[in-house]
Amino acid sequence: MKRKLRMGMVGGGPGAFIGGVHRAADRLDGRIELVCGSFCTNPEANRTMAGELFIPEEKCYPTYQEMFEKESKLPEGERMDFVAVTTPNSTHFPIAMAALEHGFHVLCEKPMTFSLDEALKLRAKVRETGLVFCLMHNYSGYPMIRQMRRMIADGVLGKIRKVVASYDLGWLAAPNAGKQATWRVSPKMSGAAACVGDIGTHAEQLIEFTTGLKIAEIAADLATFVEGRQLDDDATVMLRFEGGAKGVIELSEVACGEENQFKLRVYGSEGCLEWCQQEPENLVLKTNDSAMKTLRRGWAELDDSVKGMCRLPAGHPEGFFEAFANIYAEFTAAVAAKMEGGTCKGLFPDEETGVRGMNFIETVVASSKQNGCWLPLKKL
Amino acid sequence: MKRKLRMGMVGGGPGAFIGGVHRAADRLDGRIELVCGSFCTNPEANRTMAGELFIPEEKCYPTYQEMFEKESKLPEGERMDFVAVTTPNSTHFPIAMAALEHGFHVLCEKPMTFSLDEALKLRAKVRETGLVFCLMHNYSGYPMIRQMRRMIADGVLGKIRKVVASYDLGWLAAPNAGKQATWRVSPKMSGAAACVGDIGTHAEQLIEFTTGLKIAEIAADLATFVEGRQLDDDATVMLRFEGGAKGVIELSEVACGEENQFKLRVYGSEGCLEWCQQEPENLVLKTNDSAMKTLRRGWAELDDSVKGMCRLPAGHPEGFFEAFANIYAEFTAAVAAKMEGGTCKGLFPDEETGVRGMNFIETVVASSKQNGCWLPLKKL
Amino acid sequence: MKRKLRMGMVGGGPGAFIGGVHRAADRLDGRIELVCGSFCTNPEANRTMAGELFIPEEKCYPTYQEMFEKESKLPEGERMDFVAVTTPNSTHFPIAMAALEHGFHVLCEKPMTFSLDEALKLRAKVRETGLVFCLMHNYSGYPMIRQMRRMIADGVLGKIRKVVASYDLGWLAAPNAGKQATWRVSPKMSGAAACVGDIGTHAEQLIEFTTGLKIAEIAADLATFVEGRQLDDDATVMLRFEGGAKGVIELSEVACGEENQFKLRVYGSEGCLEWCQQEPENLVLKTNDSAMKTLRRGWAELDDSVKGMCRLPAGHPEGFFEAFANIYAEFTAAVAAKMEGGTCKGLFPDEETGVRGMNFIETVVASSKQNGCWLPLKKL
Amino acid sequence: MKRKLRMGMVGGGPGAFIGGVHRAADRLDGRIELVCGSFCTNPEANRTMAGELFIPEEKCYPTYQEMFEKESKLPEGERMDFVAVTTPNSTHFPIAMAALEHGFHVLCEKPMTFSLDEALKLRAKVRETGLVFCLMHNYSGYPMIRQMRRMIADGVLGKIRKVVASYDLGWLAAPNAGKQATWRVSPKMSGAAACVGDIGTHAEQLIEFTTGLKIAEIAADLATFVEGRQLDDDATVMLRFEGGAKGVIELSEVACGEENQFKLRVYGSEGCLEWCQQEPENLVLKTNDSAMKTLRRGWAELDDSVKGMCRLPAGHPEGFFEAFANIYAEFTAAVAAKMEGGTCKGLFPDEETGVRGMNFIETVVASSKQNGCWLPLKKL
Repeated sequence: MKRKLRMGMVGGGPGAFIGGVHRAADRLDGRIELVCGSFCTNPEANRTMAGELFIPEEKCYPTYQEMFEKESKLPEGERMDFVAVTTPNSTHFPIAMAALEHGFHVLCEKPMTFSLDEALKLRAKVRETGLVFCLMHNYSGYPMIRQMRRMIADGVLGKIRKVVASYDLGWLAAPNAGKQATWRVSPKMSGAAACVGDIGTHAEQLIEFTTGLKIAEIAADLATFVEGRQLDDDATVMLRFEGGAKGVIELSEVACGEENQFKLRVYGSEGCLEWCQQEPENLVLKTNDSAMKTLRRGWAELDDSVKGMCRLPAGHPEGFFEAFANIYAEFTAAVAAKMEGGTCKGLFPDEETGVRGMNFIETVVASSKQNGCWLPLKKL
Repeated sequence: MKRKLRMGMVGGGPGAFIGGVHRAADRLDGRIELVCGSFCTNPEANRTMAGELFIPEEKCYPTYQEMFEKESKLPEGERMDFVAVTTPNSTHFPIAMAALEHGFHVLCEKPMTFSLDEALKLRAKVRETGLVFCLMHNYSGYPMIRQMRRMIADGVLGKIRKVVASYDLGWLAAPNAGKQATWRVSPKMSGAAACVGDIGTHAEQLIEFTTGLKIAEIAADLATFVEGRQLDDDATVMLRFEGGAKGVIELSEVACGEENQFKLRVYGSEGCLEWCQQEPENLVLKTNDSAMKTLRRGWAELDDSVKGMCRLPAGHPEGFFEAFANIYAEFTAAVAAKMEGGTCKGLFPDEETGVRGMNFIETVVASSKQNGCWLPLKKL
Repeated sequence: MKRKLRMGMVGGGPGAFIGGVHRAADRLDGRIELVCGSFCTNPEANRTMAGELFIPEEKCYPTYQEMFEKESKLPEGERMDFVAVTTPNSTHFPIAMAALEHGFHVLCEKPMTFSLDEALKLRAKVRETGLVFCLMHNYSGYPMIRQMRRMIADGVLGKIRKVVASYDLGWLAAPNAGKQATWRVSPKMSGAAACVGDIGTHAEQLIEFTTGLKIAEIAADLATFVEGRQLDDDATVMLRFEGGAKGVIELSEVACGEENQFKLRVYGSEGCLEWCQQEPENLVLKTNDSAMKTLRRGWAELDDSVKGMCRLPAGHPEGFFEAFANIYAEFTAAVAAKMEGGTCKGLFPDEETGVRGMNFIETVVASSKQNGCWLPLKKL
Repeated sequence: MKRKLRMGMVGGGPGAFIGGVHRAADRLDGRIELVCGSFCTNPEANRTMAGELFIPEEKCYPTYQEMFEKESKLPEGERMDFVAVTTPNSTHFPIAMAALEHGFHVLCEKPMTFSLDEALKLRAKVRETGLVFCLMHNYSGYPMIRQMRRMIADGVLGKIRKVVASYDLGWLAAPNAGKQATWRVSPKMSGAAACVGDIGTHAEQLIEFTTGLKIAEIAADLATFVEGRQLDDDATVMLRFEGGAKGVIELSEVACGEENQFKLRVYGSEGCLEWCQQEPENLVLKTNDSAMKTLRRGWAELDDSVKGMCRLPAGHPEGFFEAFANIYAEFTAAVAAKMEGGTCKGLFPDEETGVRGMNFIETVVASSKQNGCWLPLKKL
């Protein structure tokens, strides 16, 4: 593209968390321009946010409907090229559907929708329109996660036998955890599950992304430790994969003292790979007959495709924003290609990933309701 | 005691692993003397081992039966005071029973017996004789595990909500893993389970030891990844505790690349404690409202009882032998007290722990056979 | 400011390293706009870079002189507000002087100049013009470095006794290390020292920044390990501080295998603080009478001023760009304040820091030439 | 040997530290028997210690002179075979001399003597008698230190360029640090230096042991931070090696918060090896063109000679006692060989190492007194 891609945003008003992360990630590479937004349903707050972002008043829309309608009437190069949806789960579906209907490519926060049913409808719409859809599973944008995926695909671990993921945060340990927490544990805004939707889908997505395996069956035990809370704040999910591998996901948002402790270990017949989100620059390879290796972002023995995702040399720490920005870079490359009449299918999570995640959430909830019996994921 | 305690040993012949560990641990503090043994059923090897240990020929017995019989006829101070049983699981029961019947205190390797039924009989015999019985769950001898137990008991974590243990080794990743491996995966020598008996009981014991919680129900999924193997080499066990806490144990002996990776995390309403066997000098405390603390063996903020278990100052690494020796020290203190007409109940694992472990093994196997349905542990 | 600050850049053409880092850091917060540049003396490359950055042709100047001249004639709001100087050391002085003379605030890469003499002239010019000058010692922008500074100032460590810094990279281990390396080891482009100027000044600056101590005397031993190289690629510098504390800086750019291994430990009468650039989210506090504490960026027990420098919650890793951006944020706050007639003196490194660094370099080189005799830093 | 080796001990009375470490290390392998001792000049305390060790009264000697005299008159197999000297530095020389004169092999704590002059005399006596002399530099008994030595000798690092050691403890941070501290900072009992003798010689020995390099010149800056203390409690020593390598040793016993933080990094033209005493199971190899490797005690890629020094498999932590015991094992193998008419020269530190250490101490002190001028080590 001879110009920056033009982004609109829904959500991300004052006090929101993830909207700001999207914006910072978008800015990092200087190839995306935030040109309009409908940040908040409160008009005052909406304008305040636009002001902080140096967005002119006429580009600060009171509703996403108005934004899509008006923007879609502008000529290419003046209108937004795509929209980022960073609202609570319950509104992903109507916003994304409307965006697609107005011809905009969509980058949407996870989980994809409020229910699996919505996800299937949204997937159908994406297929129908041929527009680009990206689901923000940001952890799959970390270079060392890409390296992990590459090495497993290359057979470094042999045949995969066991996958162990844990994702623990302490932020919901107490009943009142602030605005961010409120909607996440609300059955009306979050969906069938809280913890499983918020972090469980990250684990499920990263497991399937790195290993290439498909979860076949799950057995789950959900818990709600904080009194009065209506949704799960903790879960354990046992996994059986197609092809015979097994696994377990341990999840908690009441893991008092944990920050954002997301860990993944994959064991195969020949070795093990281990990664921790809080130290994302390291990927540890262990085998029975050689010394432990720590592959480092930006250093030796990395796949060329991974080297290309590094903005800084090794030892100059990259982090969360860069992983986020990597997903944006792949998504916008696909958008640009599409706008220029071509295609560019990156590895970014898409509508299939989104359906998979909703399928996972609903199966986990169903298993737990049936006292943890093994249930297959639906074929969709 | 005015003299060293006199130990006999059954098992621990040439090529054995754990017998040698017992002996080194026994020697460390200079308060136990290995005076006799029946190390091996092969007479030649038996004598070789005795020679290496500077044990006179007449104290090297061809069978444990003969050893117990002859030693029991010697006067106190000449006969052995207790016996260490370090043979494969299938022989723990007859050896320990015979020792008790001949009036010897017993320190036995885990798991206690081949079956729960045997364990109950052995417990009855211990109660009947009033002799001291210790089960070698060595990990509970680490000072920082004791500190963890103390802090949880003192309420540092608030009400316990979630317990996560993982125990991974790679040594059985390939079909032929040597002599040590052979008996451990043999249904005739190991019992109803291999991996669950070998390392699962360590996890179960350490969880109950540190938290004071009792496992109420379990749901398990066992796996055998190496073709032709007759017992499990991998497992995941979900836990529900009396009082409402939950947990999960992840186990593997085919975790290619792992050494002896035993980790334990306990989450309560106020914080988290985390310990890893491969870095046993550290105990990490995390809470939501203060900086992460790493308590170190031998350093500040330790309970007095824990300080008393350290042989070296902080920064002078202690390890596996010392933890082992701590169990021996507590056991022999109880033996000495008993011999002098008193009592000294340490925290060492005993016959109750042993029954508990066998109960765990059999319930896990039963759950897995019923496709992972939740089963309660028996009340015994 | 009601608008983004407008930045011009000198240096940072194709293949340059640090210029790109400046640009990414500038973009992160969305409050700075790169409006013009003279990126490269090669006209073709200069235009290419401008194109990649979506800078219009007329804002891509063939020389910095022309840029300063033309921009200074534009009205406020159309001209650039400040310039970032990211060229090799030898040209910092003329560029920065010219910028100041044309009324532009300056952010300059370190070391400040080619020689101490130049640094003194530049400082005089800054004082004379009253413009804002910032020296990019980016490591002092890390939040946990700010926390370290705060805690030392608050007396947490008691009276400082010993400071130990080491800064090791492997990138110059072989004779030919690429374009970036060439100018850094050239006496004509780098200055009196290579390694000492490149990384030694970072160590010196961070030590004085965090401790508040002033280096009084130094004794240095420089080395050149790669044959044919004309400047130092390795050094050790012993330190004596005003007030009696001591210290040592160990430096190497031929430390084969190291990435960007910059570590700092400060010992006082009451405790120690330790920080490593490659794990910048952690600050470790050790004392003799309490457990080790790891303070984490974004988590508990941080000073309010430090919390304000975090863009993401704890456990969502920040890194090198964010530290860079923190220096830019403080610098631009000072620039904005000045433009609005006020003042806002942040903690960013300034012309005094720059003179200090050049003083350090020249004293180190002099000491080493006199076989490591102790020499005082000049009073300037 | 068909029997255990018989050891006598001088020093190690109640309240002593290192004597107890020697005894535990001696017991670990079951091949050494402590048969007599003169633990303390106080007769009551001497007897108490003997009692705790189950040593019969007649083998508890009031003085080392009497012990050597009486034991030397006993027949082989009844008398002690060697003596361990674990007293304060000032008495090493007379005790070791007397032991050699009575025909006993000697294992002596470091530093070898009170002065270099004594060390030279003691070395002459060892040579004259042909008896085995071992200096307890225990850190050289760690398996991963042996691995480090092997890899450097094998050229894994290429030509060595830079060596960086640091050894920091906090135990002398306050004026009164207990009985152990008192003699170590006394000019009458410790020697020309405190910190340099106590820990500096460990660093010097480990550097020369692992690299095979010889220190040619040093420049030192000693400090005494605790008021009223008569000897150094902190030091920095710059090093130049024969052959052109350089290095630095940073030492402190007032490093408040540190336990026993001894670290060593060696850089060569091809890579780097790094080891930390507090995590002694790891040896880290870094190079510019491959991923970081962590070699682990007991795991893959170790030299056969190193495998033979491991008592436990990888993941079963070994520590300080085992390293100590490895030195004893090598020393006693040499003693046994000598007793049987052969020779067995292990890698244990000997009288040459001891002279080297005293040479180092006195040169460091001399340099510091001359304001840190470079001084060569004497050729001895």
